[in-house]
Amino acid sequence: MFQFWGSRTYSGDRGAEGMENPGYCSGSFDGLHHPSDDDDDEMVDIAGATLDFSSTDDVPPLSSGGFEDYSTTTGSSSSSSRAAGMNGTGPSNLVDPLEDPLPGVGTYEDFNTIDWVREKSKDRDRHREITNKSRQSTVALLHSISDAFSGWLLMLLVGLMAGALAGGIDIAAHWLNDMKGGVCLIGFWFNHEHCCWTSNETTFQERDRCPQWQSWAELITGTSEGAFAYVVNYLMYIFWALLFAFLAVTLVRAFAPYACGSGIPEIKTILSGFIIRGYLGKWTLIIKTITLVLAVSSGLSLGKEGPLVHVACCCANILCHLFTKYRKNEAKRREVLSAAAAVGVSVAFGAPIGGVLFSLEEVSYYFPLKTLWRSFFAALVAAFTLRSINPFGNSRLVLFYVEFHAPWHLVELAPFILLGIFGGLWGALFIKANIAWCRKRKSTILGHYPVIEVLVVAALTAIIAYPNSYTRMSGAELISELFNDCSLLDSSQLCGYKQPTNTSETGAGNSLADRPAGEGLYTALWQLALALVFKMMITVITFGMKVPSGLFIPSMAVGAIAGRLLGVGMEQLAYYHHDWFIFKGWCSPGADCITPGLYAMVGAAACLGGVTRMTVSLVVIMFELTGGLEYIVPLMAATMTSKWVADAFGREGIYEAHIRLNGYPFLEAKEEFEYSSLAVDVMRPRRADPALAVLTQEGMTVGEVETLVESTHYSGFPVVVSQESQRLVGFVLRRDLLISIDNARKRQEGVVSASQVVFTEHAPTQPDDAPPPLRLRGIMDLSPFTVTDHTPMDITVDIFRKLGLRQCLVTHNGRLLGIITKKDILKHMAQIANRDPESILFN
Amino acid sequence: MFQFWGSRTYSGDRGAEGMENPGYCSGSFDGLHHPSDDDDDEMVDIAGATLDFSSTDDVPPLSSGGFEDYSTTTGSSSSSSRAAGMNGTGPSNLVDPLEDPLPGVGTYEDFNTIDWVREKSKDRDRHREITNKSRQSTVALLHSISDAFSGWLLMLLVGLMAGALAGGIDIAAHWLNDMKGGVCLIGFWFNHEHCCWTSNETTFQERDRCPQWQSWAELITGTSEGAFAYVVNYLMYIFWALLFAFLAVTLVRAFAPYACGSGIPEIKTILSGFIIRGYLGKWTLIIKTITLVLAVSSGLSLGKEGPLVHVACCCANILCHLFTKYRKNEAKRREVLSAAAAVGVSVAFGAPIGGVLFSLEEVSYYFPLKTLWRSFFAALVAAFTLRSINPFGNSRLVLFYVEFHAPWHLVELAPFILLGIFGGLWGALFIKANIAWCRKRKSTILGHYPVIEVLVVAALTAIIAYPNSYTRMSGAELISELFNDCSLLDSSQLCGYKQPTNTSETGAGNSLADRPAGEGLYTALWQLALALVFKMMITVITFGMKVPSGLFIPSMAVGAIAGRLLGVGMEQLAYYHHDWFIFKGWCSPGADCITPGLYAMVGAAACLGGVTRMTVSLVVIMFELTGGLEYIVPLMAATMTSKWVADAFGREGIYEAHIRLNGYPFLEAKEEFEYSSLAVDVMRPRRADPALAVLTQEGMTVGEVETLVESTHYSGFPVVVSQESQRLVGFVLRRDLLISIDNARKRQEGVVSASQVVFTEHAPTQPDDAPPPLRLRGIMDLSPFTVTDHTPMDITVDIFRKLGLRQCLVTHNGRLLGIITKKDILKHMAQIANRDPESILFN
Repeated sequence: MFQFWGSRTYSGDRGAEGMENPGYCSGSFDGLHHPSDDDDDEMVDIAGATLDFSSTDDVPPLSSGGFEDYSTTTGSSSSSSRAAGMNGTGPSNLVDPLEDPLPGVGTYEDFNTIDWVREKSKDRDRHREITNKSRQSTVALLHSISDAFSGWLLMLLVGLMAGALAGGIDIAAHWLNDMKGGVCLIGFWFNHEHCCWTSNETTFQERDRCPQWQSWAELITGTSEGAFAYVVNYLMYIFWALLFAFLAVTLVRAFAPYACGSGIPEIKTILSGFIIRGYLGKWTLIIKTITLVLAVSSGLSLGKEGPLVHVACCCANILCHLFTKYRKNEAKRREVLSAAAAVGVSVAFGAPIGGVLFSLEEVSYYFPLKTLWRSFFAALVAAFTLRSINPFGNSRLVLFYVEFHAPWHLVELAPFILLGIFGGLWGALFIKANIAWCRKRKSTILGHYPVIEVLVVAALTAIIAYPNSYTRMSGAELISELFNDCSLLDSSQLCGYKQPTNTSETGAGNSLADRPAGEGLYTALWQLALALVFKMMITVITFGMKVPSGLFIPSMAVGAIAGRLLGVGMEQLAYYHHDWFIFKGWCSPGADCITPGLYAMVGAAACLGGVTRMTVSLVVIMFELTGGLEYIVPLMAATMTSKWVADAFGREGIYEAHIRLNGYPFLEAKEEFEYSSLAVDVMRPRRADPALAVLTQEGMTVGEVETLVESTHYSGFPVVVSQESQRLVGFVLRRDLLISIDNARKRQEGVVSASQVVFTEHAPTQPDDAPPPLRLRGIMDLSPFTVTDHTPMDITVDIFRKLGLRQCLVTHNGRLLGIITKKDILKHMAQIANRDPESILFN
Repeated sequence: MFQFWGSRTYSGDRGAEGMENPGYCSGSFDGLHHPSDDDDDEMVDIAGATLDFSSTDDVPPLSSGGFEDYSTTTGSSSSSSRAAGMNGTGPSNLVDPLEDPLPGVGTYEDFNTIDWVREKSKDRDRHREITNKSRQSTVALLHSISDAFSGWLLMLLVGLMAGALAGGIDIAAHWLNDMKGGVCLIGFWFNHEHCCWTSNETTFQERDRCPQWQSWAELITGTSEGAFAYVVNYLMYIFWALLFAFLAVTLVRAFAPYACGSGIPEIKTILSGFIIRGYLGKWTLIIKTITLVLAVSSGLSLGKEGPLVHVACCCANILCHLFTKYRKNEAKRREVLSAAAAVGVSVAFGAPIGGVLFSLEEVSYYFPLKTLWRSFFAALVAAFTLRSINPFGNSRLVLFYVEFHAPWHLVELAPFILLGIFGGLWGALFIKANIAWCRKRKSTILGHYPVIEVLVVAALTAIIAYPNSYTRMSGAELISELFNDCSLLDSSQLCGYKQPTNTSETGAGNSLADRPAGEGLYTALWQLALALVFKMMITVITFGMKVPSGLFIPSMAVGAIAGRLLGVGMEQLAYYHHDWFIFKGWCSPGADCITPGLYAMVGAAACLGGVTRMTVSLVVIMFELTGGLEYIVPLMAATMTSKWVADAFGREGIYEAHIRLNGYPFLEAKEEFEYSSLAVDVMRPRRADPALAVLTQEGMTVGEVETLVESTHYSGFPVVVSQESQRLVGFVLRRDLLISIDNARKRQEGVVSASQVVFTEHAPTQPDDAPPPLRLRGIMDLSPFTVTDHTPMDITVDIFRKLGLRQCLVTHNGRLLGIITKKDILKHMAQIANRDPESILFN
């Protein structure tokens, strides 16, 4: 009976259409969006239909089930009538069949904004009902208790699942990454380290070359030395990189286009109250997990941290289906997703507190204190799950855990701030360049060949990266090496200092004293400088491709290289010029004054801060990596500088920039609305436009209502006392209205086009021969939000943000004047900022 | 010209009246509040007048200055007209002198709630003006930049000042505390430890008995041994305790009654948007700092952690006066105060991240992300200032920094959860007992003799505490000792284990292996058990006395004792029964399986959690004390259990309970509104009451308006189109109305009682002989908040909380029906919860 709706949005055509979509990530929707539909309130149902194939159904589909439910719930308590929204709460004297929720009423279209107020109110009603019932029977009491603890149980499950997945991803990526170099003879499923564990070699260096592990050259040509072996290894490296990249992009295209990118911009939008069906579904989870491993192993300049947040959110969304409370309520679900974002960062960096702050600062929109506490719990569970899997074999949660021993000196704040400036500049530049490239991808032929694009970039990366050992290793390994503090025994090139000739002279006891740079270090510096340039360029074109790709690791790598270079420079300066004024008093010869590893860490924080504009959470994540409170100050100085410098070039972080690129309706909570417009300047209809389409509370027939609805595209209609007075009664959603009328025509006796539609409590007296009226008070929102026409827009924007509104009605001296939707506000903001208001695509 | 206002609220009578107030802390306002004034909107100006003497003036007093400002600003830009509120923004064709802000318009009475929306809007206007001007000249640009950075500078200053004060308090309290035992001969200003630093003794134990430090018995009787010496020391201990307590309570009573208590309930209320003038003034700061030292040293069962938050907030409030941006705006000031609360906890526990989370979770009401970042900065600055002062001589920020080495086992979760249950029970019991005691103090003669009360409790404490070494030492020292892990060399009684007879047998390498309890430990356990009972009882009557008193340390001490007792019990159980099933596999003989110090810490967290209901912040504070991520799980398990258990007995923490006891208008953000009432059930006027007092936008004369205002106590009046239509135009505040009419009568030609009051844009045509109309559109809020009568109260409460409203108008089908104030909501909630609605005293 809902066939005309069902076929448009939900029915079986999953798959084929979605895959035709030439390119989803960062620039996808323009292909789906009807360019002609430029009015404010249209529904983007086409997008919903074509992209819905990977969906875990978030709401009961209109076309399935339904009426069985409907008939059984008829006549239930009055609280369930309130569950349909904030409506129907007055004393109801009429037995109105529509007071019970119809299936579909109160749910949302794909690519639409939810109404937070309605969702939260729904949940409170549900909670109230359970609490009231719990006083009646023991079973109901148990139900009430299990309901109260279901949130905690869900968090536990999310933490366990995300932790386990993260561990699996780490292990698999490690193995595949080693596969590019060679294979283990005692079992191809061992990675290099595991393969050599059983070996008898004593030193670490020899163990790395254990006979069980053979490079491809050894395996194919029988020798590991010489130019030919090098070429074979080189070619095999490129081959595997291309294979992994090809698999990743093909899987994404074939099974889950939503699995590409980092996912954080979309998750931010979803958490702000937007519906993207299937974005957090099971297909996305499976494909993202697999392709993330492949993409990371392919050597592309991308990280797994952002996608891990997406993976954790998918886990949470899927697990939500186990609990009615979370399955049926969009607002409650978003609380869980906020916690899942914390879980993602917690497992990515082994920083549970940092993860919670990341979710709070960067991702979440609505973050009540209860969520804070639960996020923390879930983040801890995930961290401990990951630790018990122990993917790095070092009892740590991350590859780049560091411990510094030397303190830093106040003078060093100058280079730290310099790193902050570098980070800010790089962040601003990166965002501009990446967005320009993504725009190009959207608008040119480039976007039509995502597979070829990925293959070309992967080949380019592999070819350039292989000869330089610092680009050949994975991003996380590189960062780990750069953060590392050199000890005397360290064999790494970066620690290629000249050994002190006379130990007694330079302080034999202090093995970490500053030393002059040796041959090895100079080579390393050259390689690092080249790696820096390469990483900076390749990351710009990598981020936004159709593979899962995080930004944290590449940004941190850029910063860590820059920081290490500066750190070594400072160190050598201090060594050779310790009598300079600035080094006097704290850097005597033979002392260990400069820690280049700390510079690398500060640089990493600065660059990541410049790109993402994270602040507290970034510092806390880094603090959790080092564990020392004293290093917070350098990190903070660099992060602050970086944010200020980057903000001077543009206020948006990379995630906000991508949100805007994709035209999502996202109202940034961090930015103040700076302009002095009034509500009357933003509302529709504009002065020249035809009057607002309204329904009257009585006097309109079903036919008139249908004509009005069909002749407009608005997603909702205000209900007024009469056309003359324009005094507001309520607000009714287009979707609810259509479903109800259609249902009534099918199910209710005598409802024809001439029947009156009545929104009042009591039906008006009618002539005897008139058809029975259709009562729709049940679907009307009796408490629509209103502002006056003189309300400054800054206040209006604040109301929208804090309450999570979809729309707000505008009155003047008690008369209805117009309506403001979230989209209107975003368009207005775009217009003021001299951007194209039509870039806001969704409602 | 504002003499009648000024004399009632602001003029010189500072001091005398306030000191007559029989007792301020927890139970003060009933003496000040007129019991007959039981209508909703009265102004509590009497309270303001009597308690205002310690004030740092928060707003320009009405009676000073003013008209010079007024005349110079006449005719300034339109943005300044908006600065008077959210009003006057329409196209203004008339040159209306009232469009410029009058002095006093837009400020608040003492003991009134602020309007967050108006304050934030004011600040945005100010910001917009500065931004616009900055494009015009370099000076303005510099001004704009300095304005942007003033927040950071302020944070830096707050951090430095609070850190320095905390350091000073620590040092002074340490010295005075030692003074109770003896005096340093080489200088009375040295504390025990400093006195003996220069001594030549080699062992720690001997150094403690260095000849430079003499106990009072040694000084007076010449001997430190024997019964007589003990009695002398005992008496001197009591003497000093009484002296310190007497000084503390007298200073508080004489100079700053607001300095008593912990301050956190009031700060929570202030941050939620309430005005208590002088609560954060310079007198409060000075007196609180001094008396805090005295109170802590007097040996009373109280801590300095809560009061440190108050001290930090006072610092912030005073420093706000250096910056116009913060001086003039109540909302901006509260952002700074939120950060200051973080600073307070940061210096109290040496936990900057924990402090920020404490502010976020427990204290703050409005916590934008910008504040998060700044709080973190300030908390760090304060922590480093404190560290550089190094009050404990151990490079740590707190006395009870701990490092554990042994891991914990899953089986141990059972005793940890047991500790959580104990903490929850104790928390619930403590709150009930303390509130009952405070009520008794309020209602009986007890409250009239605060000095005697303090002296009696101090004497009681000193007499009982001295014989038991665990109660004789200060709370922080006790906790430090209980948290401590015993090493083999430890000489403390708590570490009085039997030395292993045969080292090889029990594992010689592991010096920390479990050992059987010896004589010393058994004595210690008895003393601890007695100390537990004593602490539990004395804290109930101590908290709420008229001296600065924090709850953190006493609560933690109770928990730490209980935890240590359980820990030692577990340890002995494991030693003697390591073959039991539960110890199998992880606790072999000679191993170090149980860490009693960890149990003490978990117990401390559980008890503090039970009393305050802190969760994340508590765990993070404890985490920052230990530094080990693995101990988070025990802490979390105990804190969670404790909160759940305590919540089962009552949802309120101690701070909320005290807020309610004092009748402050505080809308708890953590609790959901659980009931299904509608706005129409809560609004005034009730069905039987006379109609709402409204003004019409034209047609009323000055005399009529004055009569209406004087015949009612409402703090504001809605303006409607006409009495018949009741269509809402705006809202005008009583205070603004009175000031404006009074001003017009004095300054404007021809304004008499017969003049028309006009709220419209254009003055209506009048007969020629009529007096000129008084135009008051400038003071009218053109965008009052409205909800419909059908709006569920849960949504209304949400709106009040999230937007920080003072009042909200209620409409039905576009007609004005009534008004809901914050007080109405709180009364309604009290009524539903079967409490006395009249306990809500303020508006």
